Amino acid sequence: MQEVLPLKTVGLVVEYNPFHNGHLYHLTESKRVTNADAVIAVMSGSFLQRGEPALVDKWARTKMALFGGCDIVIELPYLYAVQHASLFARGAVAALDQLKVDTVAFGSEDGSIDRFQETIRFMEQNKASYEKYLHLYLQKGFSYPRASSAAYSEIKPPAFNGVDLSAPNNILGIQYCEAVKDLESSITPYTITREKAGYHDPEPGDSAIASATSIRNRLLSEEYSLDDVRPFVPETTFDVLKEFYKTHGQWHQWNDYFPYIQHQLITKSPKELGLIYEMEEGLEYRFKKAVTKAGDFESFMDYVKTKRYTRTRLQRSLVHLLLGTTKKQAGELVHPLRPDYIRVLGMSENGRNYLNGIKKDIDVPLISNASKGDSIPALEKDIQAATVHYLPLVLRGTGSPVREYTAHPIRVNKNEEASI
Amino acid sequence: MQEVLPLKTVGLVVEYNPFHNGHLYHLTESKRVTNADAVIAVMSGSFLQRGEPALVDKWARTKMALFGGCDIVIELPYLYAVQHASLFARGAVAALDQLKVDTVAFGSEDGSIDRFQETIRFMEQNKASYEKYLHLYLQKGFSYPRASSAAYSEIKPPAFNGVDLSAPNNILGIQYCEAVKDLESSITPYTITREKAGYHDPEPGDSAIASATSIRNRLLSEEYSLDDVRPFVPETTFDVLKEFYKTHGQWHQWNDYFPYIQHQLITKSPKELGLIYEMEEGLEYRFKKAVTKAGDFESFMDYVKTKRYTRTRLQRSLVHLLLGTTKKQAGELVHPLRPDYIRVLGMSENGRNYLNGIKKDIDVPLISNASKGDSIPALEKDIQAATVHYLPLVLRGTGSPVREYTAHPIRVNKNEEASI
Repeated sequence: MQEVLPLKTVGLVVEYNPFHNGHLYHLTESKRVTNADAVIAVMSGSFLQRGEPALVDKWARTKMALFGGCDIVIELPYLYAVQHASLFARGAVAALDQLKVDTVAFGSEDGSIDRFQETIRFMEQNKASYEKYLHLYLQKGFSYPRASSAAYSEIKPPAFNGVDLSAPNNILGIQYCEAVKDLESSITPYTITREKAGYHDPEPGDSAIASATSIRNRLLSEEYSLDDVRPFVPETTFDVLKEFYKTHGQWHQWNDYFPYIQHQLITKSPKELGLIYEMEEGLEYRFKKAVTKAGDFESFMDYVKTKRYTRTRLQRSLVHLLLGTTKKQAGELVHPLRPDYIRVLGMSENGRNYLNGIKKDIDVPLISNASKGDSIPALEKDIQAATVHYLPLVLRGTGSPVREYTAHPIRVNKNEEASI
Repeated sequence: MQEVLPLKTVGLVVEYNPFHNGHLYHLTESKRVTNADAVIAVMSGSFLQRGEPALVDKWARTKMALFGGCDIVIELPYLYAVQHASLFARGAVAALDQLKVDTVAFGSEDGSIDRFQETIRFMEQNKASYEKYLHLYLQKGFSYPRASSAAYSEIKPPAFNGVDLSAPNNILGIQYCEAVKDLESSITPYTITREKAGYHDPEPGDSAIASATSIRNRLLSEEYSLDDVRPFVPETTFDVLKEFYKTHGQWHQWNDYFPYIQHQLITKSPKELGLIYEMEEGLEYRFKKAVTKAGDFESFMDYVKTKRYTRTRLQRSLVHLLLGTTKKQAGELVHPLRPDYIRVLGMSENGRNYLNGIKKDIDVPLISNASKGDSIPALEKDIQAATVHYLPLVLRGTGSPVREYTAHPIRVNKNEEASI
């Protein structure tokens, strides 16, 4: 009898908002350099790390991911997804660890995994002075990411060839590597140099690779049509986007959730708002004041912006307000060394076989249908997040509030996959 | 020097949603039978006793009231307005008592104030057996108003000529008379027989008097235009309605607030919902279940309706949910023997003189500008209610969230008043 070798798997931490050519490149490269047979992606669900609603729901994005070559897509629970880099990375790596991936491959501006490891060692050795400077810059009113990067610059000797910690994907990369260490996981981290497009570039360039930000900007702008993003995404993504827009007639964006934010800020007292997760240092008063002035989300953000907090940080606290997540709840649900459950959003035939092979070794509930796991508080929060995410569609009459309980993992066949 | 006789005043408890010919008749008759020089109305603000948003805001309705002959319009605070008959009446009479009205005149199906007083005496004398039957019918699953009326029928001897307590305005009338007694007030109650239109008649009849319900139904129906209500309202009301619709392009109705209810029901746990005022006996589970099925307010009400609770009772609990009012808050703010403040929404020249004459004797804050009283918790709740009431207009871009702090009492001159 022929021995069946176990599949070699690489884990990716993704948002795919939407899945584009840059992601396809990263996925293909990750598979190549790690010599993997299967790709397991842990993906943000309805709301994203930057504190924004996903442009299209997680089911549509799961389709894009599977068409793009992922074999399993699982959901990063909302309270890890809508988080600063450290918890985001820890939640994601813990989930991949449960799924026994051999490697994790992240995109970075740096491109050298050795330099990441050296940087971590250097920062551990110089922890005290790093933290001194971090504290100093925070007191000066710097946002956390800027303070962290400035503190690192202060302690870094000119000769030390560490990674540039002002680059957003390098910051995340450090966190992935640290998460692997914290978990004492056997996962081997790899990094792939990101191709061309800057993370936040607002406009696509000449190549077939554009940032997700620039693609979203085109989709949300009235000056462009769906066809204008076609050069930057696989045809399979294009088809999913087209189908979504045909069905719902709109993309999800913050402004559609602003009425709920207004309502919350009007009806909640500062004390009640202060119970919300990440509502710190008087943000509740700032928000309450701004809501009497602003007629839409963008002008609201203009009123509340401050040097101390990044836009991302402000948006995250608004997502928590939108989902009614209190500090108490977050305290109970966030414990990043082990996920509460693994929720499968989709899989290929290959992925299904892999999952069947390992599922006896997964020591948390493996959820493929939300209705069977709705007594898990963290999962209930994800279901809430998805249900709130759908609300603008329900309002328009193109979405159903019950969907989350009836949805099953997306399945695609090998021959439907995208190619470069 | 000529002696200035103090004005003789009659108090009315009103909602004016909208002010129509029946109201004008009642107002004129009230003035005539009580021989009053001035009319003081205490009016529900943004949300009404039946647990509904007012069709047009309180400022527009104040205009209608002043044009219709009221001299002073004050606001019945939300937590008394959106209440069962007993607290509604007590809150209103306590406010009128502060304004030293000589009489209060209410419309009723009965028309004899002596029979109201006799009925009250009879019920006091037979309190124990009334309450026994009330309890019995409530246990059978009757709604409170139906159980109360049935208990009264059980104890009433055939010879006793009391008022019919199945008629909605008689029920309220009993409460006004009882409130006067409870307050040990010197106010003399009068009642005026209601002309023709039944309180809840869905369709106007042939006369110039139609129920507010039937007028609202016409305004909200796509089959009718504004002109179709013209025969039933004074021209001054018609002009205010026309101006409102021209500015805002819509009337306020429950369905426009349903998205906020959906959002609240999705994001709050049954336990959190249970903290809301009037959320009793598992209503929170009933509501949570219905929200996964219903796409609009009417179908939501179809899912939640129950024999035990009237639609009015269900709607009131939804208003409290919409305004985030907890049982704890209501417990602190509802104490019906003395209002926390008197808020003036509008006045005529006559009314202004009267108010100037008595204001030194009013022993609660007299508020004519919300920004000067926003440290009074009950007033803050009214401001919240008005701000939430505006939200659909803010969403449409035809209303401003700050309005409540900048609004001043409406003033009209004598020659602008309506006539029959």
